[in-house]
Amino acid sequence: MRHLFCHRVRTEPQVTLETDPGRKINAFKIGAVCVSSRFDRSRAEAVDAWMAKHYPGRSVSVVFHPSSFDKSGHFAGDDRARAEAFIEFANDPLIHAVWFARGGYGSCRVAEAILPRLNAVAREKRYLGYSDAGTLLAGLYKAGFRHLAHGPMASDSVHNDATAHRALAWLTRGDTALLEPSLADDPRPAVAFNLTVLDQLLGTPLEPDLTGHVLMLEDVAEAAYRIDRMMFHLTSQPSIRRLAGIRAGRFTDVTVNEPDFGLTAEEIVRFWCERSGIPYLGTADIGHDRDNRVVPFGPRRQD
Amino acid sequence: MRHLFCHRVRTEPQVTLETDPGRKINAFKIGAVCVSSRFDRSRAEAVDAWMAKHYPGRSVSVVFHPSSFDKSGHFAGDDRARAEAFIEFANDPLIHAVWFARGGYGSCRVAEAILPRLNAVAREKRYLGYSDAGTLLAGLYKAGFRHLAHGPMASDSVHNDATAHRALAWLTRGDTALLEPSLADDPRPAVAFNLTVLDQLLGTPLEPDLTGHVLMLEDVAEAAYRIDRMMFHLTSQPSIRRLAGIRAGRFTDVTVNEPDFGLTAEEIVRFWCERSGIPYLGTADIGHDRDNRVVPFGPRRQD
Repeated sequence: MRHLFCHRVRTEPQVTLETDPGRKINAFKIGAVCVSSRFDRSRAEAVDAWMAKHYPGRSVSVVFHPSSFDKSGHFAGDDRARAEAFIEFANDPLIHAVWFARGGYGSCRVAEAILPRLNAVAREKRYLGYSDAGTLLAGLYKAGFRHLAHGPMASDSVHNDATAHRALAWLTRGDTALLEPSLADDPRPAVAFNLTVLDQLLGTPLEPDLTGHVLMLEDVAEAAYRIDRMMFHLTSQPSIRRLAGIRAGRFTDVTVNEPDFGLTAEEIVRFWCERSGIPYLGTADIGHDRDNRVVPFGPRRQD
Repeated sequence: MRHLFCHRVRTEPQVTLETDPGRKINAFKIGAVCVSSRFDRSRAEAVDAWMAKHYPGRSVSVVFHPSSFDKSGHFAGDDRARAEAFIEFANDPLIHAVWFARGGYGSCRVAEAILPRLNAVAREKRYLGYSDAGTLLAGLYKAGFRHLAHGPMASDSVHNDATAHRALAWLTRGDTALLEPSLADDPRPAVAFNLTVLDQLLGTPLEPDLTGHVLMLEDVAEAAYRIDRMMFHLTSQPSIRRLAGIRAGRFTDVTVNEPDFGLTAEEIVRFWCERSGIPYLGTADIGHDRDNRVVPFGPRRQD
């Protein structure tokens, strides 16, 4: 495991606040919060250990909201506790960015309680997550938040150094060097979502206007027939037909279909694009895996 | 299995056409058609055997469209073949009612191709099915078809005599004696759907206007967190908030959640009703099981 240590000696990157690039801060504090499924303390400890190794001077630190370890049935605390934790970190001027701790399921239960209570401080931060966190990212995007991205979460980043460094590069500096590669050549606004998560917020108050956007989709552990049905539902929406196009990220651990479905996940995405008249734009380098690249929401930034 | 034979000697019921109650016909012919997953010939043979036993005089018969046995990947034939089969049986004046052969998945791929091609003959027939067939029933209901019901399909009816007799009583005579029991006391229009199937047609051209309706929901083999997420999606739709209320049918074989989700399926339905302001009306006697009662779509008929 020697390679794990090569990052220990690199210079900790200098960080700036997204909205005030001239302002240098000595310690960039990322608030990690869990709005979804139960979150084990051991996963936070792994993040702590990784950060201590890679940022020994604590120029960047990750602090977990204590409520992230609450338990309420399936969830990391009840709806009220999860909502309050997110609101507290988002609104706190001493927290410089918000990192979703993990996915699972649960953010649709709290998003509408959270959004009206976020303040001006919350609007200026970066937010990074994917999978179930996409529900809240969607609502934040609809509410006009400008610094949102689909990408690795706190607990899954630290299984792979490169993943974590990519995530932190965007969270701390808005670094665009390591984004999903198609973004470099396509100036159109983009978003990325887990297909199931986006599918389940269509028509709800959380659905953002994606007119003219490139939509990247990924999913994990869904059966091909479910992917097909979700693509029917998605591409049948008048709102979604206003997309600039769709890219297919990785669909991993597709549940075995007996008999074989007859189409791969990418072929399914392409099929429904063709049927609905939405341009199919090719693949995207996102997925439930260590290579999951960061996709900032919205227009390409010129800075 | 002696009890199986007691029906052999019963008088075959006289049948009438729904729209012309005065017209007696000697042989009521039900067209069974598969618009979803692959359908094994052995399942049709079981229906044939059951019908031969219970209707030896063939006052009622079930004929399967030959395309029902086609295979195309996951499906009972490709989209075109399944659509053509349904259209042929629906439009044929010598077929008196249409019975969905089975569910699975696939009717969302053909519904929009079928609907504009149905003729006046098709509008006067009864149609019976549930699960995946609900997608097509929804589209038919939206298109103004008046003789639709959620209830046992051809292949699952004949596993249980009472189930089959209930289904055939409605298909052949529009018999209202054995419907879902709450219908007897509630004059409001009703519909019933598999939750997943309805969830996946919201906002599409197949979604009917359910204003003022009682909606009964059932599902099978879904995880509690998925039921919860679908109920969020469903009850967040402005269209669905115009329901008269929701009843919870049976949610069977709920996938094990680790940890326990914390709510039963019925509690989840009730939770989202309360949160969204849709009246929760109690349980419904429907589900993926032999007791699945028939729920005709729309207003209670006075005849």
